[in-house]
Amino acid sequence: MVKDMLGRNEAVSADRALDILLNLPLNNKPSLEVPVEEAYGRVLSCDITSPENMPVFSRSAMDGFAVRASDTFGCSESVPAYLRLNGYVKMGEAPDVTAGPGDAVSIPTGGMLPEGADAVVMLENVQQTGDDMIEVMRPVAPGENVIAAGEDIRERDYVLRRGIVLRPQDIAALAGLGITRVKIYKKPLVSIISTGDEIVPPQSHPGFGQVRDINSFNLAGLVMNTGGIPEKFGIFPDEYNVLRDAICRAVESTDVVLISGGSSVGTRDMTAALIESMQKGGTLFHGVAVKPGKPLIGGFVRGVPVFGLPGHPAAVTVSFHNFVEPVIKKIGGVDLQIERNRPAAVSARLVKNISSAPGREDYIRVSLYEEGGELCAEPVFGKSGLISTLVRADGMVMIPSHAQGIPRGEMVKVRIF
Amino acid sequence: MVKDMLGRNEAVSADRALDILLNLPLNNKPSLEVPVEEAYGRVLSCDITSPENMPVFSRSAMDGFAVRASDTFGCSESVPAYLRLNGYVKMGEAPDVTAGPGDAVSIPTGGMLPEGADAVVMLENVQQTGDDMIEVMRPVAPGENVIAAGEDIRERDYVLRRGIVLRPQDIAALAGLGITRVKIYKKPLVSIISTGDEIVPPQSHPGFGQVRDINSFNLAGLVMNTGGIPEKFGIFPDEYNVLRDAICRAVESTDVVLISGGSSVGTRDMTAALIESMQKGGTLFHGVAVKPGKPLIGGFVRGVPVFGLPGHPAAVTVSFHNFVEPVIKKIGGVDLQIERNRPAAVSARLVKNISSAPGREDYIRVSLYEEGGELCAEPVFGKSGLISTLVRADGMVMIPSHAQGIPRGEMVKVRIF
Repeated sequence: MVKDMLGRNEAVSADRALDILLNLPLNNKPSLEVPVEEAYGRVLSCDITSPENMPVFSRSAMDGFAVRASDTFGCSESVPAYLRLNGYVKMGEAPDVTAGPGDAVSIPTGGMLPEGADAVVMLENVQQTGDDMIEVMRPVAPGENVIAAGEDIRERDYVLRRGIVLRPQDIAALAGLGITRVKIYKKPLVSIISTGDEIVPPQSHPGFGQVRDINSFNLAGLVMNTGGIPEKFGIFPDEYNVLRDAICRAVESTDVVLISGGSSVGTRDMTAALIESMQKGGTLFHGVAVKPGKPLIGGFVRGVPVFGLPGHPAAVTVSFHNFVEPVIKKIGGVDLQIERNRPAAVSARLVKNISSAPGREDYIRVSLYEEGGELCAEPVFGKSGLISTLVRADGMVMIPSHAQGIPRGEMVKVRIF
Repeated sequence: MVKDMLGRNEAVSADRALDILLNLPLNNKPSLEVPVEEAYGRVLSCDITSPENMPVFSRSAMDGFAVRASDTFGCSESVPAYLRLNGYVKMGEAPDVTAGPGDAVSIPTGGMLPEGADAVVMLENVQQTGDDMIEVMRPVAPGENVIAAGEDIRERDYVLRRGIVLRPQDIAALAGLGITRVKIYKKPLVSIISTGDEIVPPQSHPGFGQVRDINSFNLAGLVMNTGGIPEKFGIFPDEYNVLRDAICRAVESTDVVLISGGSSVGTRDMTAALIESMQKGGTLFHGVAVKPGKPLIGGFVRGVPVFGLPGHPAAVTVSFHNFVEPVIKKIGGVDLQIERNRPAAVSARLVKNISSAPGREDYIRVSLYEEGGELCAEPVFGKSGLISTLVRADGMVMIPSHAQGIPRGEMVKVRIF
């Protein structure tokens, strides 16, 4: 077996492989500026601070009456405070009245607080006793039922941090601050090179010994879900020079190269040898202690991460989630520290025992269902070479490398896919 | 207050509101046929059965030697089975040799099993003793290390069910079966009508009493994340006839209508009165026992669900997730039964006490962080009128209507947003 840059030819641990990959000198994609309404789901490429207070003026948070809080102190249902009704605030306009001592000004939710007022009495706690008089039955504290100027967002405060994936509420906050254009990272281009003498495109009728391409369709979707743009390079025979040429073109034109090879030792060795042969390139590891997915090859060629992926469909998905996804995200500008707090894993009760050989991370496909208000995870057993087990599964459960399995009844974390 | 179709003017429970909405006669969008590579994330509009066995022929799951299993029975490292090496299987081609009694045929992972063979001995368990002889050190059972014809997917089996959202592995399975075009539902059109005399577009510099539009930007993103197409109708003043005309146009041209109104009682009553005034239309409920989000109005006009949404940003998000999202998904053809097993909620440990008034569902915004390998949920307190609390939050925790709160230290379900 070909040795990697560091002379290793043994499988590395999952943590070590990820560590190697994330310590590569990976450049972020350049930024571009777009209207905020085109930035949903995109990665913000600079910190955003607020250009102004939000709201700019103090607003009522309730339908009611703007008052001086002190005028209501000590009032109750039996001893209401009597206030003079001094007009009303119109929505969307500056009030043309003020709230002096003993005054109340009718105000709708969102209305601008009139000068002099520092609180709003809710409609429910007021009785109108005449055209120009109200009885307040409950005292309010200064600031009560009011959104003060700058209470939502203060001028010059950080609103959003570089590296977040913009969600609907983030875009809404930008719009509310009058920020109508925003800088985002361009999406990473990810080339997908399918190899294998036996692989034919899906529109073909495969001859004996041939099978249709499955993995590049799985990979293209995984790349899109990760915020990348898949570029399918096509299906290439297991011929050294043909494949070398394809990898060279991919390294030159894209940000990450995925070689979706066969699982045979021959193909794998050729992929590793090819990566080794590239100018300014080499392999980082051959094989990781993960099942399925052990044959994964990691490489780095002229600043571009190159992955030689295993051939079994389930191994493709596991390898992608664990090792390719973080690399694509990092190049795409995602702050992986922030990202870590937005997990894609749910908790469920395991309904069958699963066993595992220690010394490697084991990924078990599971299907989820609800029973008695509880989420249950049922292992979907089957060879990792089967696409149908991935289709029947809702996610994966990881058994850590030190464990020998997980007994039924335990709560497990399921990464949804 | 205007009464709804059933004479109610009280808030209904969250369960009841959802029940009312999902029992409306909602039609699915029509289907269209697209190439599979354009169907990622789309909703499948018919069941898919397999046109053929996958794989079509029995394949090796390992690099090794195709043999008759019975020839290896009883062998061991000390007493190996001696087999005659009878050529090799080439990748992507039908074998030109057979495996007779006492024969072994070299085969790569994915290679087609030669006639006569019923198992594959792994490379690791074999020693080659001469050009045409191997020693097998471990017996294999019939079928071992082989993916049998039809083992992945059997001809005429159901592969995918109508109403699922197509994932990368689902598209991959279709490609593998040679299914290159697939029927999906068209995306529901969702109109967003912003009302409020105080609302100005984000590019404006708001005058006194005015604020920029926030909610329609939040809603547009939520609609997209749900598989719908947002159609922004614009910002309208709180004038009965102007708004009535906009709602009429929206009902005629889209599948769901969202009226993003102010939170004031006046605006709300007008929205309800408008829905009531429509030909063949009416309100279904005014108000739900949910906080934030109580002022939600549900209506149904000429077969189109119409929502009068509350004005506070957090209330918009809660109302959307609970009531609008299921309606958009149902119209978009999503099978909500299947969907339920793909939850968007994670478990986390609550790090502060939260209290709640019984009699309504309470939604508390939380931010998530990891500590000691455990996910922690910290409440983000703040008025529901603030967009910044939504921005700082990673998700929401629901306190059921019978509970008075949740003590710190409990595990809670967090719906990520």
